[in-house]
Amino acid sequence: MEKQLKIDSARLWQSLMDMARIGATDKGGVRRLALTEDDARGRDLFAQWCRDAGMTVSVDEIGNLFARRAGTQTDAAPVLIGSHLDTQPEGGRFDGVYGVLAALELVRALNDANIATEKPIEIVSWTNEEGARFTPAMLGSAVFTGVTSLDDALAKQDAQGITLADALTQSGYRGTRAVQGHKIDSYFEAHIEQGPVLEANGTTIGVVTGGQAIRWLDVTVTGVAAHAGTTPMPYRKDACFAAARMAMELEQLVARYAPRGLVTIGQIGIANASRNTIAGKVTFTVDLRHHDDSEVDAMEHDLRAAFANVAMTRGVAVSVDTYWRSPATPFDAACVELVAQAVDTLGYSNERIVSGAGHDAIHLARYCPTAMVFIPCVDGLSHNEAEDALPEDVTRGANVLLPAVLARAGVAATANAH
Amino acid sequence: MEKQLKIDSARLWQSLMDMARIGATDKGGVRRLALTEDDARGRDLFAQWCRDAGMTVSVDEIGNLFARRAGTQTDAAPVLIGSHLDTQPEGGRFDGVYGVLAALELVRALNDANIATEKPIEIVSWTNEEGARFTPAMLGSAVFTGVTSLDDALAKQDAQGITLADALTQSGYRGTRAVQGHKIDSYFEAHIEQGPVLEANGTTIGVVTGGQAIRWLDVTVTGVAAHAGTTPMPYRKDACFAAARMAMELEQLVARYAPRGLVTIGQIGIANASRNTIAGKVTFTVDLRHHDDSEVDAMEHDLRAAFANVAMTRGVAVSVDTYWRSPATPFDAACVELVAQAVDTLGYSNERIVSGAGHDAIHLARYCPTAMVFIPCVDGLSHNEAEDALPEDVTRGANVLLPAVLARAGVAATANAH
Repeated sequence: MEKQLKIDSARLWQSLMDMARIGATDKGGVRRLALTEDDARGRDLFAQWCRDAGMTVSVDEIGNLFARRAGTQTDAAPVLIGSHLDTQPEGGRFDGVYGVLAALELVRALNDANIATEKPIEIVSWTNEEGARFTPAMLGSAVFTGVTSLDDALAKQDAQGITLADALTQSGYRGTRAVQGHKIDSYFEAHIEQGPVLEANGTTIGVVTGGQAIRWLDVTVTGVAAHAGTTPMPYRKDACFAAARMAMELEQLVARYAPRGLVTIGQIGIANASRNTIAGKVTFTVDLRHHDDSEVDAMEHDLRAAFANVAMTRGVAVSVDTYWRSPATPFDAACVELVAQAVDTLGYSNERIVSGAGHDAIHLARYCPTAMVFIPCVDGLSHNEAEDALPEDVTRGANVLLPAVLARAGVAATANAH
Repeated sequence: MEKQLKIDSARLWQSLMDMARIGATDKGGVRRLALTEDDARGRDLFAQWCRDAGMTVSVDEIGNLFARRAGTQTDAAPVLIGSHLDTQPEGGRFDGVYGVLAALELVRALNDANIATEKPIEIVSWTNEEGARFTPAMLGSAVFTGVTSLDDALAKQDAQGITLADALTQSGYRGTRAVQGHKIDSYFEAHIEQGPVLEANGTTIGVVTGGQAIRWLDVTVTGVAAHAGTTPMPYRKDACFAAARMAMELEQLVARYAPRGLVTIGQIGIANASRNTIAGKVTFTVDLRHHDDSEVDAMEHDLRAAFANVAMTRGVAVSVDTYWRSPATPFDAACVELVAQAVDTLGYSNERIVSGAGHDAIHLARYCPTAMVFIPCVDGLSHNEAEDALPEDVTRGANVLLPAVLARAGVAATANAH
């Protein structure tokens, strides 16, 4: 007699808590930096669970870890589900690991219900998603999708000068499966929101429609360094007060793009800073985001005009250089619709949401049909040892993932035959 | 036949240029950090010049270098003239050394004219005025005047961990003359202005009436660090934009104290700064100056009110801590008047000016009657290898110093008798 097809809430939660013990911190968080001993232990545990679930485990050349549940159509491109097991230095118990273990629970539920799919289902844990040990973030999926070459990625070094290649070897996760060239039917990723929106709106599920556009700018304001005691105010070309005025102009102009326009100054410095020297040169970074590329273009245009005006008024020079630009990444309409249908069928409160953070799914979306499912995180906290999620939300996210994946993978006609 | 009493412009300029060769930099500046080999060579040269001028050289326990020209009243307290020979790492040819060599030229001129003074004249080169090697600045004069204890000063370490005591020994300038307890008739110091005011006003001489009040504050703005991509603007408690707003408020409030109120933010930093993380904590320094202590008090009061208001409006916390306060230091009215009379007699354009920078004279002013003479520096530049002064201004400053010092020291009745 078959069991009903159902996500096992307790089993999923237990898996999350078991995994959270590996690299657990005193404050209830997790420190499992990519390809460290703890990351390897986490990978080992996950791989064993997958083998226990009848899956075939393989590791590719960049250490991405795959577990395959065969489909009845042996040559069909797989439906890929996953996220990552690595964490921030002071990370939490859900960021990444939730998407991986929700996928595992999905497979376990299919096993329990003795359901075969037409297409294979593969679970993936991507290497170095956090970017906390090796820069940039999302490196494993970048190589998988051809955004970054394997050689470039292998040569990346951590703060101690250890290359990613050596870290793969040391951790035992330098695999032989080719990293590139795989045909993928579709990719689904469940993740905590890492922001406060769902919780604030009292919404259970975020149906993610894509990733927002990001633009990183480097700004340099050049005035004249001079003595703080001997230089009357009218003679000054103070780069620090000029930068402060630019920041205020920036905040105001981005407000005209509310609520979707976001702006952050994350880094600022004064060259040869001294308490009693007028700032001669100030550098700061700007992070601009919006759902639409054209709106980011417009914000940058407004920024350049505003900064040039401040510079002229104050007799300083300003340069604005583009450090990095990432266009908006819409997810696949059909896959997003599968997620939306699942949520509607389950009757969960939900809203369409654009991912503010980077995810492996952003790389995958340019490679194959992709969608994501967000669940709320408590107080919007992430990259924080206090990161938390409610058990019922954890279950609901997996409940949404299951029918969406099944719709894509196809339930085999022989499903309940044996 | 006696020569006329007259500053020898060429000799003074030649002395300055000869001294500038010691520690000369490729860009025309000077690097003669306190108690380094180059500083010792500079001191050696100066001491030899003093001995050649018939003076008696001695070194005190903190390395302050004295050269004494006897007076007819052997027990009278000396008139002290001087400044310092040490420089900034990328310093110029005039800061400090001008005051020392103008004093030497004054003595040489007295010698040439065969003029004896009633009170002795002593030239001093103070140890570690710049504070570039050992912190704080003006250390030799601080110990001389009892502001700092000898033991505390000797224990100061440079960036390499070398104590001032060891540096004195290594340089050969750990003297035996008692550093404290000397009775001083008066102190005069000639110096470049280190600011743009005299030049801008077309004024030859600054009659310095004292030092301004200085207050150093440490400000910490605490918001909440959060993800730059996932946190909507209304949810943010961004410490960086809050600090920028505070800077703007500060600039505006100090403008109400124009032209004497000065404000500088010389250092700023974001804790755990990351390009894509909203600033959780920003620290910055504030340097407030004004001629009057009560006005600095008022500026600080306004600052605290304005910052608290910004913090409340933006939902962040702010703390303002006083790091250091130096009260306004009026110079001795009689000594200042002697300088003013000299300038008037010579017919030089002049203005009363308050010293914006710290000088050894600020310490001395709390110890004995004190005055300073400023000459313009080109483009107001100082602490810079391009620091420059016009030869005619160099001469005029010494021309002013001479009668002021003579009035204080008294020309002996026997002056032209031998």
